[in-house]
Formats: sequence, C-alpha cells, structure tokens
Amino acid sequence: MSSAAIPNVLAERYASPLIKDIWSPTGRITIERDYWIAVMKAQRDLGLPIPAAAIADYEKVKTKIDLADIDARERVTLHDVKARIEAFNALAGRESIHLGLTSRDLTENVEQLQIARSLEVVRMKTAAALLKLSKRSKQYRSLMLTGRTHNVPAQPTTLGKRFAMFGQELLAAFTGLDEITARYPVRGLKGAVGTQLDQLTLFNDAKKVARLEAGIIKHLGFKSTLNAVGQVYPRSLDFEVVAALHQVGAAAASFATTLRLMAGQGLLTEGFQKGQVGSSAMPHKVNARNCERICGFSTILSGYVTMTGALSGHQWNEGDVSCSVVRRVALPDAFYAIDGLLETLLAVLNQMDVFEAAIAAEIQRQLPFLATTTILMEAVKAGVGRETAHLAIKENALAAAKSIRTGQGESDLVVLLAADTRLGLSEKALRAILSDAKRFVGAAPQQVDTFVATVKTTTRKVKGAATYEPGKLL
Amino acid sequence: MSSAAIPNVLAERYASPLIKDIWSPTGRITIERDYWIAVMKAQRDLGLPIPAAAIADYEKVKTKIDLADIDARERVTLHDVKARIEAFNALAGRESIHLGLTSRDLTENVEQLQIARSLEVVRMKTAAALLKLSKRSKQYRSLMLTGRTHNVPAQPTTLGKRFAMFGQELLAAFTGLDEITARYPVRGLKGAVGTQLDQLTLFNDAKKVARLEAGIIKHLGFKSTLNAVGQVYPRSLDFEVVAALHQVGAAAASFATTLRLMAGQGLLTEGFQKGQVGSSAMPHKVNARNCERICGFSTILSGYVTMTGALSGHQWNEGDVSCSVVRRVALPDAFYAIDGLLETLLAVLNQMDVFEAAIAAEIQRQLPFLATTTILMEAVKAGVGRETAHLAIKENALAAAKSIRTGQGESDLVVLLAADTRLGLSEKALRAILSDAKRFVGAAPQQVDTFVATVKTTTRKVKGAATYEPGKLL
Amino acid sequence: MSSAAIPNVLAERYASPLIKDIWSPTGRITIERDYWIAVMKAQRDLGLPIPAAAIADYEKVKTKIDLADIDARERVTLHDVKARIEAFNALAGRESIHLGLTSRDLTENVEQLQIARSLEVVRMKTAAALLKLSKRSKQYRSLMLTGRTHNVPAQPTTLGKRFAMFGQELLAAFTGLDEITARYPVRGLKGAVGTQLDQLTLFNDAKKVARLEAGIIKHLGFKSTLNAVGQVYPRSLDFEVVAALHQVGAAAASFATTLRLMAGQGLLTEGFQKGQVGSSAMPHKVNARNCERICGFSTILSGYVTMTGALSGHQWNEGDVSCSVVRRVALPDAFYAIDGLLETLLAVLNQMDVFEAAIAAEIQRQLPFLATTTILMEAVKAGVGRETAHLAIKENALAAAKSIRTGQGESDLVVLLAADTRLGLSEKALRAILSDAKRFVGAAPQQVDTFVATVKTTTRKVKGAATYEPGKLL
Amino acid sequence: MSSAAIPNVLAERYASPLIKDIWSPTGRITIERDYWIAVMKAQRDLGLPIPAAAIADYEKVKTKIDLADIDARERVTLHDVKARIEAFNALAGRESIHLGLTSRDLTENVEQLQIARSLEVVRMKTAAALLKLSKRSKQYRSLMLTGRTHNVPAQPTTLGKRFAMFGQELLAAFTGLDEITARYPVRGLKGAVGTQLDQLTLFNDAKKVARLEAGIIKHLGFKSTLNAVGQVYPRSLDFEVVAALHQVGAAAASFATTLRLMAGQGLLTEGFQKGQVGSSAMPHKVNARNCERICGFSTILSGYVTMTGALSGHQWNEGDVSCSVVRRVALPDAFYAIDGLLETLLAVLNQMDVFEAAIAAEIQRQLPFLATTTILMEAVKAGVGRETAHLAIKENALAAAKSIRTGQGESDLVVLLAADTRLGLSEKALRAILSDAKRFVGAAPQQVDTFVATVKTTTRKVKGAATYEPGKLL
Repeated sequence: MSSAAIPNVLAERYASPLIKDIWSPTGRITIERDYWIAVMKAQRDLGLPIPAAAIADYEKVKTKIDLADIDARERVTLHDVKARIEAFNALAGRESIHLGLTSRDLTENVEQLQIARSLEVVRMKTAAALLKLSKRSKQYRSLMLTGRTHNVPAQPTTLGKRFAMFGQELLAAFTGLDEITARYPVRGLKGAVGTQLDQLTLFNDAKKVARLEAGIIKHLGFKSTLNAVGQVYPRSLDFEVVAALHQVGAAAASFATTLRLMAGQGLLTEGFQKGQVGSSAMPHKVNARNCERICGFSTILSGYVTMTGALSGHQWNEGDVSCSVVRRVALPDAFYAIDGLLETLLAVLNQMDVFEAAIAAEIQRQLPFLATTTILMEAVKAGVGRETAHLAIKENALAAAKSIRTGQGESDLVVLLAADTRLGLSEKALRAILSDAKRFVGAAPQQVDTFVATVKTTTRKVKGAATYEPGKLL
Repeated sequence: MSSAAIPNVLAERYASPLIKDIWSPTGRITIERDYWIAVMKAQRDLGLPIPAAAIADYEKVKTKIDLADIDARERVTLHDVKARIEAFNALAGRESIHLGLTSRDLTENVEQLQIARSLEVVRMKTAAALLKLSKRSKQYRSLMLTGRTHNVPAQPTTLGKRFAMFGQELLAAFTGLDEITARYPVRGLKGAVGTQLDQLTLFNDAKKVARLEAGIIKHLGFKSTLNAVGQVYPRSLDFEVVAALHQVGAAAASFATTLRLMAGQGLLTEGFQKGQVGSSAMPHKVNARNCERICGFSTILSGYVTMTGALSGHQWNEGDVSCSVVRRVALPDAFYAIDGLLETLLAVLNQMDVFEAAIAAEIQRQLPFLATTTILMEAVKAGVGRETAHLAIKENALAAAKSIRTGQGESDLVVLLAADTRLGLSEKALRAILSDAKRFVGAAPQQVDTFVATVKTTTRKVKGAATYEPGKLL
Repeated sequence: MSSAAIPNVLAERYASPLIKDIWSPTGRITIERDYWIAVMKAQRDLGLPIPAAAIADYEKVKTKIDLADIDARERVTLHDVKARIEAFNALAGRESIHLGLTSRDLTENVEQLQIARSLEVVRMKTAAALLKLSKRSKQYRSLMLTGRTHNVPAQPTTLGKRFAMFGQELLAAFTGLDEITARYPVRGLKGAVGTQLDQLTLFNDAKKVARLEAGIIKHLGFKSTLNAVGQVYPRSLDFEVVAALHQVGAAAASFATTLRLMAGQGLLTEGFQKGQVGSSAMPHKVNARNCERICGFSTILSGYVTMTGALSGHQWNEGDVSCSVVRRVALPDAFYAIDGLLETLLAVLNQMDVFEAAIAAEIQRQLPFLATTTILMEAVKAGVGRETAHLAIKENALAAAKSIRTGQGESDLVVLLAADTRLGLSEKALRAILSDAKRFVGAAPQQVDTFVATVKTTTRKVKGAATYEPGKLL
Repeated sequence: MSSAAIPNVLAERYASPLIKDIWSPTGRITIERDYWIAVMKAQRDLGLPIPAAAIADYEKVKTKIDLADIDARERVTLHDVKARIEAFNALAGRESIHLGLTSRDLTENVEQLQIARSLEVVRMKTAAALLKLSKRSKQYRSLMLTGRTHNVPAQPTTLGKRFAMFGQELLAAFTGLDEITARYPVRGLKGAVGTQLDQLTLFNDAKKVARLEAGIIKHLGFKSTLNAVGQVYPRSLDFEVVAALHQVGAAAASFATTLRLMAGQGLLTEGFQKGQVGSSAMPHKVNARNCERICGFSTILSGYVTMTGALSGHQWNEGDVSCSVVRRVALPDAFYAIDGLLETLLAVLNQMDVFEAAIAAEIQRQLPFLATTTILMEAVKAGVGRETAHLAIKENALAAAKSIRTGQGESDLVVLLAADTRLGLSEKALRAILSDAKRFVGAAPQQVDTFVATVKTTTRKVKGAATYEPGKLL
C-alpha cells in the first residue's frame, strides 16, 4: 500500500481503535506472528529440532512490520502468505516458521482469532449500551408519553418504558451474541484437506499431533474446536456471526428510528457533541444525524448478511477460495460497521436531551382521546348503557378530531363529553378521571424496574462494560 | 378462499404434514381457539364472571372450522381477527372470548407458538439428518477418496470423512438452532402499547394480571417471556429464527453441492425413489435433481433472511403493521422451505448410491500425484538432496499431467519417477510407498469416529429423531 | 391440490385477477396448451405429418383443466411436464403434442410468456399510478407545506411538489420497466442443450427449424430472441425483471413512508375504503395501514431480489434445475407482491384526504423559522451588517425554539425579532416579508407543471392506464 | 487519514486506476473543484459579481490537494463539505465558491458524476470482455464438447457455443447497462428541499436560474436531469445502477463457475499470469483461483444490491442522511468490485488454455450415450419397431454404465449394441453413425457465428473496448 492508498471508509471514519487494531494490516500480522511463534514453541516441545535461538530471533523482530516490503514481495510471488513468511524469515534470519503448515493452517485460525476477539469487543460495547439505556430508562421511568401505534396516538406509556422496550430488543440480541462468543469453535491444525496428513508425516505420531493442536488452541484461547473440517472451516459460521451483529444493530436501529420520529415531533433531540455547532444556515434545526447514521450502519450490516449468507451452502468438496475476496471485505467491514454503530449509539445515549415540556403538552392534547376506553367504563359503572355510551363517545371524539383537522381550533373533548347528556358525566367527573394520570401508564414503570434489574444481572460479568465511554464521533 | 384458490407451492409440493398442520389456515385457527379457551379458563379462575357452561360451549365447537364463513366475514369487516372472533362466537352461541385482549394479544402469541412448534420440528429433523449422515459417514469411514481443493485433486481423504465434514457444519447449525429453541421468549399479554393497561383495568389488580399472564405462558409451553415490549415483539427475533434456518439449510446445501460435483464425475448418485424412472430419452443420465433442489431451498431461505432482516431495525414507536404482510409470507414460507429441504436431504441420505469402483479408479489415477510430498520425503531420507528431489518430482509430474492433457495417453508418473536417476527410487520402492495407502488418509477415519460419537451424544435427547423417516418426494 | 390446499397468501389476499390469471395453475396450463397447439400447427405447416383432425381434437378440449387429475398423474411419474402432457393427450385422445420438444422447450417459453404478460400488467398499473399521482400533484400544486430534511422543518415546499417528487422516482422506475418490457427476449426452441439437435433431426433442414422457431416466437408476441442459450435462458434475466419490480415498489414505498409520517403529524389520512369502519376501540385513530402495507410489499420484493440475485451467476454448464424451486416461488410471488402493492397504492391515491387546515397551522408556526435566510437578506439590504444580523437572528431563533421545548409557550419569533434593535426591522416589515408566502415555495409549482406534463407524455401510449381503477382491498 | 490508514481492500488489491481515480479521496476532490469552478463561471456569466481574478486564483491551486489538511479541518467542524470549502478557499485566498449552494447541491451532483463516469468504464470493459469472449468462441466454434445438464453428460455441443452461451448472458447484461449509462439523469442545482429557493433568491430571476442549471448539467456531460427532487435524488437510482453491475457480474460468474467445473474435469485451465508459479507443494495442481475470484466478486455485488435495495423505499419527506454512510461504502465498493471482476475476467480470457485432447477423450467415451436418440431413429428407419429398439438401447446403455461404475472396466456401448440382435445394426453401421460427428452438435457453430456478429455490431461504438487490456492481477 502506497501512501496514497484509498482508505477503508468504515474503519477510518467510524470504527474505534479496539476493532481497528484487530483488523488493520499491522494488527493482523501481529496476530500471525504470535501464532507462528506459538506453533514453533509447541513443535519444539514435542521434539522437532527447532533451536531455541531461532525462536528468540523471531521474537526479537516480531513488532518490526514493514508493509511496503511485504507488499513488494507479494507482487512478485502473487501469494500473500508466502510474502509474509519471507518477510518474517528475512527479519529473523531464520527459516523455522510454518513447518508442516499449509497456508490455511495459518489464515483460518488467525481470521477466527480476529473474529473471536472482535466478538468480545462487540459484546462489551453492547453491554455498555444496555447499561446506558437502562440508566436512561430509569431516569424517565414515570414520564408519561403518548404511546403510538401506526405512528398515531394510541395509549399512554412512559418514556422510560419506551427506552426499556428497545432495551429488551437489545437484550435479546445480546443473548445470542453471548452464546456465540462463548462457544465459537476454531478450525485448528488440519492440513490441506483437513486430515492432518502433513503434521502426521512430520511427527509420525498421532498423539503428538493431537497434543500440538490442543496446545495451540489453548494458546489461542478457544474453548472448542471443529473436529471434522476440510481445508476451510464451514462458511456458515461467518454467516452466523454476521447475523448476530445484524441483530444487535437492528435493536439499535429500532431505537434510533423512534428517536428520529420523536425529534421530528420536537419531543427530544439526540444532542450535540462537545464543540459541535448546528447548521449555520438554519439555527432552529436539531438534526438527528447520528440516529440516522445508526440506521445506515444497520443497512450496511444487512448487506454483509447477504454476502456471508451467499457464501453459505456453496462449499465445493474440501473447499476452495471463491470465498476469499468476499471474506476479506465482509468480515472486517461488518465489524467496523457494528463498532461504528455502537460508538454512535453510546454517544447518543450520553448526549440526548429530552424536552419534557413538549412531551407533557402532547399528552395534554391527546389524553382525552387516549382515555376514551376508561371513560366508557366509568360511564357504564354510573349506569349508562354500554352501547349508548360508546356511540356518544365515538361521535364526540370524531367531532373533536375533525375540528382540529379542519382548522376550527383545538376542540376540547372533555367539554364536548360533559355537554353530552347521554353520558351523564360532569366535566368535573371527567377531569377527575383524567387527573388520575398514573393509572393510564399501566405497568410501564414496573416493566422499567424489571428491565433495569435484568440488565444489571446480565452485564455483571462483562468486563469493562460499566466504565466504557465512546470516542469522539466524526 | 374458494376451491380455485392458488396454492402455496412450498407447502403443497414440498412441506410435510408436521409443518403444514402448524401453518395451514385450519392449523392456525386450531391454535387460536385453544389459546382463547386457555385465557378464558384462567380469567375465570382469577375471578372474571365467565360461566363454566360458556367455556364448555366453545370447547364443543372448537374443531368446527369453516374457512369460507370466516373469509366472508373478513370481506365485510376488513379485519381478520374480528372475523375469526365472530365465527367462533357464532358457533358457540356465546361472547366470552377475547376479553380485555387486543388483536395483538392473540396474534403475536399464536404466531410465536407456531414458530416455537416449528422450531421443534426442524430441530428433530435436523437431528434425524445428523444421524443418517453419521451412519453414512461410518459406512464409508475408510473408503479412500481423492480430496479436492479448488475442485482439483489435492490430497486423499475418505468418503466417510467428507460426509463427516458436512456433518460438522450441520452440527454447528444444530447447536444454534437448539439454543434458540430452548430460550425462544414469548410476548405474552401486554395490551395495545405493551403496558397491560386493559387487563389492569379489567382486574384492577396487578398481581392477578401477572398470574394470568404467567398461567397463559405456561399453558403455551414457553420457558421465558419478554418483559418490556410494545404492541409487538421485536421483529429481530424473526430474523434470528430465519437466520438459524438458513444456517441449517446451508450445511445441507454444501453437502448437496458436493454430491452434485461427484455425480458429475460419476462417483456416486443420489439414487432414485422407489418407483421413480429415469429420463426416458436419455437412459444413461443419473441426475442429482434432489440435491439441486436442496440448493434451491437454501437460496429461497436466503431471500427470507433478507425479508426478516429488512424488518429488523425499523420499528416505529410501539409498533405498526408494515411488517404484517411480510411476516404472513416469510415466516410460514421459510418453515415450508426448510422442511422441504430436510425431507429432501433425508431422502437423499436414504437413497444415495456410492460407486466404489469409480472412486477407486480415480484414486488409482491420482495417487502418484497426491503422494508427491511423501515421495519427496522418502527420497530425502534415502540421501537425495531436497532441492534436487523436488525439481525431479516437479518435472515428472508436469510431464505426466501434460501427457494426459495433450492426448498422449495416461502417462504413469511412477514409471517416470523410477526412470529418473536423480531420485534414486526404484519402481518397486515407489509402488511400496503408494501401496501403504492407509497412511495417505491421515486422521480421516478417526475424525469420523469422533463425529459419530458427537452426533450420538448431541441427538440423544431429541425425541423422535432416531426413527424419523421422510415422506415420498414429488 | 386437494380442496384443503394451503393458499398462496400473496395471491389470495392481495393480487388482482389480471395477475392471478397468468400465474394460477389453470392460467399456466391454458398458456401451455395454446403453446403446444401453436407448435403443432407450425410443425404441420412445415411438413410434419400431424393430422388437422388431431389439432382440432386438442383445441376442443383445451379449456378442460382438471388439476386433480394432473396432480394424481404427477404423483406417479414424479414429472410435472409429463403429467400435463398425458392429461392433455388423454382428453384429446391423441399423441401429437410436444414432438421433438424437451421439457424446457415448453417450460422456459411458457414462463417467459408469463413474465412478459405480467410486465405488461405492471407497466399499465404503474402508468395508472403515475396518472393518479399527477392528478393529486396538480390538485395541491400550490399548497404550501413545511418541507423537512432529517425529519425536521427545513424550508417550505408545496404538497403538490412533494407528490411530484415521489412521482419523479416512480417515473424513473417506469422508464426502466418500460425498456425491459419492450426488449424482453425469449429463449425459443433450442432443445436439451441449446443446439436445436432434436428439431434438426426431426426436420433434417436447418431453414425449416429456423422458420418453425421464428413462427412460434412471433405467435408468442416476443420481439427478440436469445440466440445462444443452453438448456435454460440466463437466470440473471429473472434478476433483472425482479429488480425492476423492486424499483417500482421502492418509489411507492418512499411515498407511503412519507404519508405515514404525515399521518403521524395529523396532516393527512390515507382515508377509508367505502364501508370500512375505523378501530371500534379507539375512534380517534386514523391508521395508515395501507401505506404500511405498501412498505411491507416493498420489503417482500427485496427478498425476491435476493433470491433471483442468488441464482444469477451460478449456472453450471448448459444448465441444471437448482433454480427450479426458487423460480416457482420467487417469480409468481414477486408479481403478486408488486400487483398487491400497486393495487394498494392506487386505492390510497383515490382515497387519501388532506387536512389543509392542519398543514396551514404548521406553516403558520414554522414559517418564521423557515424564512430566517430571507429575513437575513432583507436586513442586510436595509443596511445592517451581515454578521450582526446573523447573530441576532440566530439568538432569537434559538430562544423561540427553547421557549417551546421548555413549555414556556409558543414564543412568536417575529415579535422577538422586531424587538431586537440590532436588526432594525419592524414587526410590520417582518410580517410583510412573511406574508409574501408564495416566494418561499420557490420553483415548486412550476416543477409540478413539468411533472404533470411529463406524465402525460410518458403514459400516453400505455393502453388502459388512464381508466384503470383498483379493486377492493382486503 | 494518517499514513497508517487501513486501506480499502477492494480498491487496493483489485481495482484498476481507471476506477480508483474516480473514487479516491483525491479523485473526488478533483471533480468537486472542477464543479465549483464551473458553477462560478456560469454564475459570473449570468451576472453575479464574481471577479475573473478569483476564478483564476482557484484554477491555479485546484490540483493542490492536501488530504491531511482537509482531515484536520473536518475533525474541528465535523462537517466534511465545509472542511473542503475552507481548504480550497484558503489555497486560493478567495471566498467565491459554493455561492447559494447547499452541501447537497455539491455532493449529489459530484457523486452522480462519479457514478456516470464509472458506468462508462464498466461499459467499456464489459464490451472488451464481450470481444475477447467472442474471439474465444470463434476459436473453438466447432470443437465438439460433452454438453452437460444437471452436471452430467446430456448432448454434444461445441466449446465455442458454450462460450457464446455465457456471452449471450453478458450481452443481455450489457444491454441494460448501456441503457442506464445513456439515460442516467442528474439531480442538478435544486437547493435544500429541491425548490431552488436559494438560487432564486440569489438571482431573483427564474430564467437565469434555469440557464445556470442547464449550463452546469451540460458541463457535467449529463443528457437528462431530474425535474422534481427533494434534497436528494431518489436512492432507488443507486439500486438500479448496482443491480445492473450485479447482472454484468453474474454473467461473468456463470462463465467462471463452468470453467471451475471444467478445470475439475481436466478439460481446461484458466492459465497462469506471466511469471506466476503454481503451488510449490503440489506441482500437478492447476487451480482456477481467478475464476473463483470472479465468483467471489459476484457475491460481493449481491451484498451491495441488498444495501442499496434497502435504502430504496425509505425516503422520509424531502430526504435525510440515513443513507449517507451506506452510500459511502456501497457505491465505491460496488464499482471497485465490478472493476476487479472485469479485470480478472479479461485476464482469464487472455490466458486460458484448452486441453483439446482431454475434451476429445471425453467425447470419445460419452458419444455412444449422447447419441442414443439418433441411433434409435436409425434403427426405426431400418425397420425395427420403436419400442423394441428403445428397450434394447436402454438395457445396453444401463449395462454399459453399470460396468464402468462397478469397476468392470469401460464397457463399449457400441459393441454391446452391435451384439444385440434386436436392433439389427452392425458395429460398422453404428460406427458410421457416430463418425458423422458434426451432426451431433446441431446448430452450435451457426449460433457462434451469430453471436460473433452481434458482438461486433454491439461493441462497435464503445470507445476503447477493442484495444483494452487488463492490468496485472495480484
């Protein structure tokens, strides 16, 4: 890559160092070299004649990564792994790495390690998002809000409950992610077609080969391995991982979509970053651009779901490399995208600003409509026939709505209902019903409490989640 | 639906009764009515004035399902749930169902129940497929086969190992499916915006509402519930389910793809169903049409992954119905597709026929090439310089290959190598190396053993899997 | 299919007869039989010994379609084409159809004919939608509306322009659809691997075979043919068609999405169908359920894009049938979905109801903010420094917005600006600027005029579009 | 971007300079600056007081692009367009660009220009691929080849015809691409919500604004413009473009898939690049890695189809930026992918090597089977009953096939048939039928001729296509 290389937009504009360090060319080579050294040590321990000094020579130079040199070597051999072997050998002045390995014994395991480590990062940040969402949910536990279905006012809820609702979706996604992270299995040292032939030839001892592989897998930190693979691990594992990322992203995007709707109604703002100025031309605008961006990342992830989903089911025999270019793109880019999404989500959760007065004003306008079911029941209790009461309420509600829509002013439904003799409820009685606002939110506050408790329990074991803070967004 | 209704192709041509009975109009209504009755009973137990006789009246008529009547009612009201309420009420001569429920309190739970039951069926059939694959893998545990990467001969493996390799992919998919099936959470009785307002109004007692919901969820057989939802459960759960189905299908499709390749090389056939005749025009043809169909189902599933993936992340507020038409299509059709796929896979596993002689003939031709690495090592052991030996082998291998490709006949690489004095290996010595064929398959047979054992353990608790047999394919 | 067959939801709930008649089992068989008869006639004309009486016998029975009989035959032979041949032969008491044809010579052409005819229907309905949208655009050509970007107020536009904007997107989709419809090429009579071997053997005369094919293609109504195909026509043609449908659907979905947003703001309603009642529980609700449904159809189409996109690029040799089950699902279902979408769109365009007073009220509230750029320029003209004026406006705009959000009431930005001595503009002067409302909509009305004129020209040649009316929705 | 920026893999490993120069940061800024200068000139011509010296000052510095400086500015303002305006102004020492423009007046048009220019490149390379495929098709016009359906031998064809078959698919894709390229419409200067308000305010003269826009569009080289847009052009246009790229890629991938199959059968090789060495470990391997890569690119494109397809139909009001991050990824990466695919395809077409002897040997083995239909007809001509002949042929064909599969050696079907007295055809007669090999390929050679002629006509007007040669692959 020359200095004028075209950058990866997702990595450079949106992803955080935690993920970039895993997938950058330098990061990858660091993992590879650690892997080669681990294999050498294990081979030496099992009797292969690799001098300790050779291993020391490799360790001495392992952080000297010269991408231009490696690139130049690849442009000669047209073989990326070979180029990286040569470069490392040249630095160490040795030729002891990669003994009995095929390229895939390196690349499959290294890439799975990149995936496993990235999953840990995503898991931690998802837990951090749950905690912040839980905090916001608690903050607005009892703030009555006009609940909407079909995007129109339906019944009251609370803002905290609305946040908990999206938190519930994120919790479900976290569960799946957590399971995959815990059991993600690695391919191991299996050779050209998966039979371990070359290692068996090298050691001429099946037990030693088994010990070698087990040692390496332990070194890599995996808890399970794939017993019967070919040249490659099944590509449907990539799909499973990316699908889990999409599920996490989708929960965030549902939340962000609703924030965009609420911003459009003037009920809240996603807020500004420190130092950010608004539109210079239109100072009244409070754009939900970060929430829009979250939705964009979710769309991006759906594309990588398609790519990895299309690789799945197309293995030919023991494997080929028609997946190679796809995985070079879809895997890192999917992790950059989910990382960018989570960074953005965390920032929004930090910065968002709720306009409580505007929310209260909307409830004020909508409550009589939202409460018609309850009013109906009170009228019946007071002795009015159910059908009579229903008709009276319906007619008045429609009249009040029409009045607003036709510009005759905001007609007060309570006044209309009080004036309707069929109902037999005085304005005072009606206002009394409406003033008992707490009842209209139903179990919303208790659902918030349960959500908050669940998040606490769920995230307790996720190291770093409670204190993680997002970087500055671009 | 009139008698001339256009049928659902996936259901009618490919799916089995186990799945069709869950998703057919009649099957769905059966589940709904059971649900309504369960709610009534629980409400009565908790003090609502529902007469026991009313419940008995509903139970008497619950299997009388007249789709034409329901359809006629919907075409009047334009409301599908209302049409089904009216029809059930009319049959029972009562109006006691659906008290305090919104449509979604019915439909969300019923659809999740359809999903949960379908997941059980898919899980059972996947386990059945694993068992049949395991049996085939054991049968051909040691049958040496030309392993291929990039679709060209690479190193030997065994046919049993090749089957185990695809079995490993299916095992991974099974694990994910198993986890989802075990924890799939239901929405429960949450009301119009998820706050349980209407049930709370009905009972005026939060504890009773909690007991009602818990009772219903237990009745449905779910082990977990979603605490904080809106009108709908998060649609990313649908994506998670369909993605898990796609993963199962992908494992089968990788297997089927390789069978198609092998059929093209004349190494095996997927076999015929009892009574099936081949192509009348071309009697020599043995088409892998069922394997092709498996690949087709996998492609179909990828489309439903896109649909459910596109619903995910697009919830507006407490929910709307822009997902409705999508879920009416994607959920049943995804289950019909995976069911058709598994039925086809099971049939292929039953019927497939391996041409051992053809496989042996290929190995005979390819072994000298596949064994060049080993020959090289023997030459070195015998004192030849590594680079000299390498060059000699390479030149002769290329010459032998060229001879075949240019039509000069199948040149015997062994003869060529024996004649090359640089190597110092007699034809007898070379034939001895090649005759020790067992070594060339490496750990393949042992990997089969491990696979077989894992399948046994994994499927032990899956009821019905060991004895399930597919229906007749179309 | 038995009478209890599970129906195709898209066909039975949403599609119109125009499309269903093309894709229903009966519709397809009708096309097939016409095709067989056309081939027989042409073969007879070119000298094959097919008696005229035989052709007459087939014509006599061609509308006798007994699906149960055909189904029973297929369950014996496991060959759908053969079953339909036998059924037709049995009815006619002849065996003269399908001479020298392979199954694909029938099915490829018949399916392409179904596609071509469906494209004509979609083209006509898209043109009808353009005309209705054009009418609505004209109706509201000058109705000033708060234009929004990022979902928050930005600059004024007109409602007619907003409709024209979505019409522009639909026009672009129409253009692509129109091109494909015009040039959609048919496979023709090409035989088992595309070389016409069997027809050449039959006629022993290349010119006759060419004339036979040309005659059939003309009979089918195609304007172009594919010269060099294998057993199948390229599946990327299916992708091209479905992608064009998705583009049409996307334009409609953008429109529907914005209507859903506007319904949420109380600015318009998609209206009710004749006889439809609203929610009985919540009479104030005006749900945009049909607009939501349009969005749902668009999502469904994206799934068929994935399916047909995944078939593309996977042809093996001269073709296989791994696409078969996919095309049985994706092709008819994509056409049912776009048809249902267009029916819904046409109904919404007929029924929608605009709340002009509510739109005016929003403009009233927002105009001072939307006009700040213009006010700035007037202040500068009046001699105020640009930066001074900018700062004054910004501070007052932010104060006014804050006042609303914090519940201090709707602060009048005009009053605030008039009171700010830095600006030197009296309230009268400011009101004068704002009263010249027409200027704020810019070129919107003229853009409507251009749109209306373009639609008129574009749709002129689309037969039936001007008078087409949608059926009743479910 | 620092020097350690993570590179875009598709751009840096696979794309050619023709495409990279359009989408690189530097390339984009070059287009932007040209655009700004063109707008300034047109504004000056129409009377705005922009000094000629200012324009000259911008022109002097327009190639001085300092990405680090721009990046630093953006990290302060968090506004990418503003950063680029400031950087250009600072270089010129002027502030005359971007007058009356919103960001979108710049970015929409610049991005559409990038798309339009990229489409031209793709069109040219697709035409180049058609020409090379046409040449190969002509070269092997009459080389008889075992045609396959379901991946098993079906009927003979020619290799040239097989190439023409994939060429036909590419021709169809080219047609769609050609149409889009010709009519791709640009958004133009439409302002913040599409009404041209700011330009109208600036010029106070609708005609001048129209002339300004027309001049700019002409300068950009577009032939059509979008009349009624909002802030953004419809995103379904992006989908249309990417879908067209996927169609091109799919045609190439079908070709590449079949080459991979043929390489597996030893019938041809995709060849080596100059200087490339094969696998050092396995010298006999001839991997179709470039063909695999073509398939990989096609899969990648399907992911961008999903992304752009998911943007389509989701416009809110006059537009928002939830598409921004998606388009930053999907548009350039889709063009890098199709460019890499076409470069690879062109290289394969140059280098591929056909093993005619192996193809002939396969035909030799298969011809008796492939010719059974013809043999049947000859037996009937010679007086044998059709059913008798059919049975005899079927039994012998099955026996011969069984003999091969069970390892009893390659049984000669001709000998078997000659020995069967029911047929009455001597071995000599049978060999005579088979020796007239030319007849078995049917119209294949003539179809090649037609394909070659069509390609010639179609590509005649595509500048540069006839002489374009791919770069060296990695």
